Amino acid sequence: MLIPEELDRIHIVLVRARNPNNIGAAARAMHDFGLRHLRVVNDYPVPFESARSAVDANDVLASAVACATLAEAIADCTLVVGTTAVGERDLQHLLLPLPEAAPRMLAELRREAGDGRVALLFGSEKTGLSNEEMSHCNWLLTIPMQSYESPRHASMNLGQAVAVCLYELVRDEPQPQSLASDPANSSAAESPTTAADLERLTILLAETLEKSGYLRRHPANCEPAQLRRLLRRMTADASDASIWMGIFRQLLWKIRRACD
Amino acid sequence: MLIPEELDRIHIVLVRARNPNNIGAAARAMHDFGLRHLRVVNDYPVPFESARSAVDANDVLASAVACATLAEAIADCTLVVGTTAVGERDLQHLLLPLPEAAPRMLAELRREAGDGRVALLFGSEKTGLSNEEMSHCNWLLTIPMQSYESPRHASMNLGQAVAVCLYELVRDEPQPQSLASDPANSSAAESPTTAADLERLTILLAETLEKSGYLRRHPANCEPAQLRRLLRRMTADASDASIWMGIFRQLLWKIRRACD
Repeated sequence: MLIPEELDRIHIVLVRARNPNNIGAAARAMHDFGLRHLRVVNDYPVPFESARSAVDANDVLASAVACATLAEAIADCTLVVGTTAVGERDLQHLLLPLPEAAPRMLAELRREAGDGRVALLFGSEKTGLSNEEMSHCNWLLTIPMQSYESPRHASMNLGQAVAVCLYELVRDEPQPQSLASDPANSSAAESPTTAADLERLTILLAETLEKSGYLRRHPANCEPAQLRRLLRRMTADASDASIWMGIFRQLLWKIRRACD
Repeated sequence: MLIPEELDRIHIVLVRARNPNNIGAAARAMHDFGLRHLRVVNDYPVPFESARSAVDANDVLASAVACATLAEAIADCTLVVGTTAVGERDLQHLLLPLPEAAPRMLAELRREAGDGRVALLFGSEKTGLSNEEMSHCNWLLTIPMQSYESPRHASMNLGQAVAVCLYELVRDEPQPQSLASDPANSSAAESPTTAADLERLTILLAETLEKSGYLRRHPANCEPAQLRRLLRRMTADASDASIWMGIFRQLLWKIRRACD
């Protein structure tokens, strides 16, 4: 995970976005991944104004900055990275797939210590970044896709592309800890079944199967080793094992009564 | 990258999605990443019908299947993974962050060779998956976010969440610690349990518990969602499931005789 001070040095720049919903979706993704700084470059202000006045506009959108030109939007940035769907354009730039691009962006950001600012550019929904706009970029990244129809013409929805890029940027660092071992998930994690728990369960199951008549009909399934394996494949935690103990005790009690 | 044959075995299931735009966005992300199979579970058909009739509806949406119940939507799946924003719920399941969850899903998919089908579930925009819906899942995944405001309540836009999950699934080469190569899992290799197998087992267990008197004494352990979770934690292969079916049938037969 990035520290907030690093996140604050990443600026998302939407260039000629036409659809207010997409601007809103980009702002929402930024909010989700902890980024604050959105800049919107547009010749005419309608999409941005509409996005800001939407009922679900968030704080990222409220503090977003409208810029008349791309040059103005990236003026204070030390690294400018463009996004592209590639297509058939003859690219002049270094182009990296997102999984390689994200750590490189972060490394460049950190190398600049407190001064560096990164701009990540997204072009218009229809045409992406123009060649002129790409010329402002240090290098480009692309999201690897594998659409089964026309891979060379695939392009993502703008809001989804922003979400995927930010996910990868924030993903990059080794995760602090598996959520599985998070105390919040204690029920799944904390109390493993001991071998002794399982052995008690095996013995109880064996008796239940014998008393119920299952043993007579399926002796091969009732070998102790077989039962032990069967129960071990329940990757039970200790509370599971105790529920199963209770279930089999009750079944056995009922069956014994029937046999008496 | 996944091969098309593998992509075709991943099913996206949208449960109670309300907004046709979100259904469309999910279908678009699927198209971008080469998935074809969308299932939509809804009480009432309006959102799905609206999404399908949208001007930009794609081929994924055209071939999407509407299901009346979640059980129906996942019946032929061997692995069911739910997505959750975590929040403050007390989860009963194993929960993995997406970067760990994706390789595990792929490893489980590959272990089952040509037969396995994975369902990846997304809940409604407002509430996510309910506890009852989660009880159908083998395990859960969450997209790590770091919203600076209220991280515990962060939740992503549905279309963006689908895009991020599919990006991560398609992103990477198989991880070295594939479950497939774990000899401990070799016994599970050939015939995976389908969700329908497990549902039959759940129903049989419920009846067994009722007839044996266990239900009366431990009603909380006998809630359908609770039983489903208990059985799912048995990571059973199909032969395990059929042995358990045989065991419970025999127990039930014996207990019924005792009750007559």
